[in-house]
Amino acid sequence: MEKKEIKNNLESSKKAPKRQSYNKNSNRNKNYSRQNNKQQKNNKVNKNKTYNKQNKIVRKTPVNIIPLGGLNEIGKNMTLYECGQDMFIVDCGLAFPDADMLGVDLVIPDFTFVEKNAHKIKGIFITHGHEDHIGAIPYLLKKINVPIYGTRLSLGLIEGKLKEHGLLASANLNVIKPRQMVKVGCMAVEFVRVNHSIPDAVALAIHSPAGIIIQTGDFKVDYSPIEGDIIDLSRFAELGDKGVVCLLSDSTNAEKPGFTVSESKVGQSFNTIFNQAIGKRIIVATFASNIHRIQQIVDNAVKYGRKVAVSGRSMVNVVNKAVELGYLKIPQGILIDIDAISRYPDERMVVITTGSQGEPMAALSRMGTSDHKKVTITSEDVIIISATPIPGNEKHVTRVVNDLLKLGAEVIYEKMYEVHVSGHACQDELKLMLSLTKPKYFIPVHGEYKHLRAHAKLAEDMGMEPSKIHIGTIGEVIQIDNVEIKVTNTVEAGGVFVDGLGVGDVGAIVLRDRKRLAQDGLIIVVATIESETGACMSGPDIVSRGFVYVRESEELIEQAREVVKKALDHCIYSDIRDWTTIKSEIKDNLSSYIYRKTKRSPMILPIIMEV
Amino acid sequence: MEKKEIKNNLESSKKAPKRQSYNKNSNRNKNYSRQNNKQQKNNKVNKNKTYNKQNKIVRKTPVNIIPLGGLNEIGKNMTLYECGQDMFIVDCGLAFPDADMLGVDLVIPDFTFVEKNAHKIKGIFITHGHEDHIGAIPYLLKKINVPIYGTRLSLGLIEGKLKEHGLLASANLNVIKPRQMVKVGCMAVEFVRVNHSIPDAVALAIHSPAGIIIQTGDFKVDYSPIEGDIIDLSRFAELGDKGVVCLLSDSTNAEKPGFTVSESKVGQSFNTIFNQAIGKRIIVATFASNIHRIQQIVDNAVKYGRKVAVSGRSMVNVVNKAVELGYLKIPQGILIDIDAISRYPDERMVVITTGSQGEPMAALSRMGTSDHKKVTITSEDVIIISATPIPGNEKHVTRVVNDLLKLGAEVIYEKMYEVHVSGHACQDELKLMLSLTKPKYFIPVHGEYKHLRAHAKLAEDMGMEPSKIHIGTIGEVIQIDNVEIKVTNTVEAGGVFVDGLGVGDVGAIVLRDRKRLAQDGLIIVVATIESETGACMSGPDIVSRGFVYVRESEELIEQAREVVKKALDHCIYSDIRDWTTIKSEIKDNLSSYIYRKTKRSPMILPIIMEV
Repeated sequence: MEKKEIKNNLESSKKAPKRQSYNKNSNRNKNYSRQNNKQQKNNKVNKNKTYNKQNKIVRKTPVNIIPLGGLNEIGKNMTLYECGQDMFIVDCGLAFPDADMLGVDLVIPDFTFVEKNAHKIKGIFITHGHEDHIGAIPYLLKKINVPIYGTRLSLGLIEGKLKEHGLLASANLNVIKPRQMVKVGCMAVEFVRVNHSIPDAVALAIHSPAGIIIQTGDFKVDYSPIEGDIIDLSRFAELGDKGVVCLLSDSTNAEKPGFTVSESKVGQSFNTIFNQAIGKRIIVATFASNIHRIQQIVDNAVKYGRKVAVSGRSMVNVVNKAVELGYLKIPQGILIDIDAISRYPDERMVVITTGSQGEPMAALSRMGTSDHKKVTITSEDVIIISATPIPGNEKHVTRVVNDLLKLGAEVIYEKMYEVHVSGHACQDELKLMLSLTKPKYFIPVHGEYKHLRAHAKLAEDMGMEPSKIHIGTIGEVIQIDNVEIKVTNTVEAGGVFVDGLGVGDVGAIVLRDRKRLAQDGLIIVVATIESETGACMSGPDIVSRGFVYVRESEELIEQAREVVKKALDHCIYSDIRDWTTIKSEIKDNLSSYIYRKTKRSPMILPIIMEV
Repeated sequence: MEKKEIKNNLESSKKAPKRQSYNKNSNRNKNYSRQNNKQQKNNKVNKNKTYNKQNKIVRKTPVNIIPLGGLNEIGKNMTLYECGQDMFIVDCGLAFPDADMLGVDLVIPDFTFVEKNAHKIKGIFITHGHEDHIGAIPYLLKKINVPIYGTRLSLGLIEGKLKEHGLLASANLNVIKPRQMVKVGCMAVEFVRVNHSIPDAVALAIHSPAGIIIQTGDFKVDYSPIEGDIIDLSRFAELGDKGVVCLLSDSTNAEKPGFTVSESKVGQSFNTIFNQAIGKRIIVATFASNIHRIQQIVDNAVKYGRKVAVSGRSMVNVVNKAVELGYLKIPQGILIDIDAISRYPDERMVVITTGSQGEPMAALSRMGTSDHKKVTITSEDVIIISATPIPGNEKHVTRVVNDLLKLGAEVIYEKMYEVHVSGHACQDELKLMLSLTKPKYFIPVHGEYKHLRAHAKLAEDMGMEPSKIHIGTIGEVIQIDNVEIKVTNTVEAGGVFVDGLGVGDVGAIVLRDRKRLAQDGLIIVVATIESETGACMSGPDIVSRGFVYVRESEELIEQAREVVKKALDHCIYSDIRDWTTIKSEIKDNLSSYIYRKTKRSPMILPIIMEV
């Protein structure tokens, strides 16, 4: 593994503008947000800068922005930037399957276009270490091995993934700090600190021949962060003043008015709950990657004289990594092994666990069903679910809450106390980002259509012209220069399903079959037929699975056999010897019989063996 | 069909107490909610009333309350009351299947216990006409035909159901009005008006030898209802003063503080939106049964000079029935057929539609995917989703919102305006019910465990002793008299799955197979074997569905065939002729091969044909 602190190809952002000549002539409308009514006039003034002496517009080298994920969907965020012969990737995340993607473990972006352009791609830039931004990296590295640039924690988490996939040795990981810049051919990528629900998150400022493009990654504005600094508002302002040609900004909370509450508020709630939980054990479920949350749990444990144990594989991994890298500070003697919790009385324990989304196999769910080997839930437990259910997980979380309550525990969930805050900017923060960066063009990203639409509307309400806002779709080649934003092409894009070891071998046809099987099960009809005479040597036999409870439906199955027999006899009398015709004869007769009797449509699979 | 206004066996509630001797000696602690600290003392005073001259407690004839649905679950509400040789049923609803009940259409209560006691059952009493309270009636009537008692609208909706099932002719439907009472053997059931999201909802006051039992049904307190009166608070107070031995109360919103907003607030929001939607068509999606909501849409349509069309089968049915029975007042000329909407300009139309839960086949979903035959969505539409997603439906609703937004429509959803209010009482209303009825015992009903627990906690907070609150489970026989509440027995109870025409033929085994098939598909291995020699005459052939895309996995399938061949050869050489052993040999070898190669576990189905 090649891992180094980038020095040579970095330059402090202070110097950057002097060397990056493409910034000099930036064509900007700086004022739309402050002086909406003067916008027309300002546009004209600014535009003049891009006219040469012959009064012709001097068009700059355009940049192509090609989103390969994260638009009109939650997750698998990935964007490609192209300028001339240079390309780089921003983030490479996974998505969790929808309920109708039966049996699928993960969804990753379609890498076809990336593979075709492998020779151009100079690197992968990572905004932060969440699964929806880094989860597909191992799958990408198996196709193309290019350097990865990210902050220390992001790379630490990526390392863990690459190790699992046996890719660590060959990986080229480069630690970048906020305000550092990496040159990528004719472009340069600068890291700008933001706040989010994981430490070390950054936005990227892409200095390109067409101007500065800012991709925020996931962000919020936290004026009282747990660790590290406030989002680098002054750098965003500075870039905005220089001129930002395009902003790609996080739309996750674009429907929500106001400001996202500071992470430190959660610590206050923990303090209140810890203070009241006298004599009881405290169990907190949260996202493993929310290290600031975990820090606050640890801090309160220390304050109230409790030990901390950690449960759940991902929680153990992340806590170890965060402690190792110094992102999580746990005083000596506080952290104990989960195997040792029985040695401490309940009132001296805090257990931090996975399972805040009600994932059936996670530690908290197992505690709820009394399947957890180390933690037995009783009325002596106060359990805090420090998370909000991600859409689709509501029923899972409810099931776990019910289970835990039935065991007598006190459970704090949903909005009972402020035990969770979002990691994403609400409307007022999004407006702040738009105001500071004053982009010429705006592409809302990270969200379903309704989120993108709400974010676009915010920009419109601030006076931005609708024609300068682009709600994109994945696979679009969005070309930007100083004069216009337009879609010039589309490339292959979509989701590739990962099921077990298979990547891409489950597609639409397999899923359609799974859906059919899940709905009404299947009926298999087998018959052995003498190939010369067409006579039935054995069978027809009927086997069904997932259709009816056969022992109680013997009559139905027997009659079904008769229907098949008749169909076969009909084929013999009519001298039909073509297997395909015989099979469809069986299928048609049997399915209409079954539907008439049951109003169900199981898959019918005729198999004919020839002897 | 026998349908009559009950006169003979009814008595006004005013007279009831005089004739119902079991009310005279009611043993009540009337004051727990008002004088918590004096409770001990009061208990003693009241208890003295039930001592006879020898100072022995005179125990009254107990009543058994047997919940068959609606506890620890949402839906399929059904409760049985038994006293001596008399039994009756309250409500008989269905539940919608959970996501893991693959292919199941509906879930109905297990009627085993009811069938066993058919001779005792005197009738079914209906609190209101929602599916989760009436949906299973046709299935019950196929087992036992007993009189049904309900308010006019409830019976009107039941009629529609019975007609579909061909049961109307034989049904015995009896219209009861609030404050009327029906005698049932040694008990009598009184209807008490409540507010809910459907008109004509009632609570039931059951006058029994053990005392008065109140089952609220679903309710809220609406001080400004759209039609009809406010919930009959004075009757609840009167019953409370007489003495209520047990209250069974709606727990749906027991987690929510405060008071549920009045339905009339929604009308004000409609007014605002209609007023702003100048020149545009308005489409409102809501629950078909929410007739007050529909009334408010119609009222606003009239006010703003628009016609109303109705889309969606259940919406058309309910609107017709509600107009016929006088629950929905639509002025002449306002209602037009959906086929005629093209004759009116957009700005003069309102369409009321089903699909507020994002149901994939409902009218609104079809509008979103441009599959609706009559309604084409454009940027000239303002669409209001006047409902909150039921847990589990969030992603469906989001998909529809995204679809409609993509077509350019303005969509009002979630909390953008107050376009929906709940039909269930929040904490302050639940406390009001507890205060008015002052029950000796309390059984929270209608909800998952967390709702029941929250409702129990409310009662505890009001000073009720935990020992007098019973969080039940279905199938319990809860015996109540003037001295104690206890579970004396359990009876068969649970969910029966309806799939197509099949009732109960899909159970745990079928579902387990469907889950397995849905997850990883299946592999069928067929071989024809000569019965005497054991030689393989044809095959082994491999057929798979829902496993991999076979055309791209030929090598895997070919190798799988080799694995099976080897297993068969092994059986021949080892002289294994027992089909079961041969099959398990195939299964074990193939499944471990497949898992090693793919990390998947498809169902493996060996079929051996003998010739």
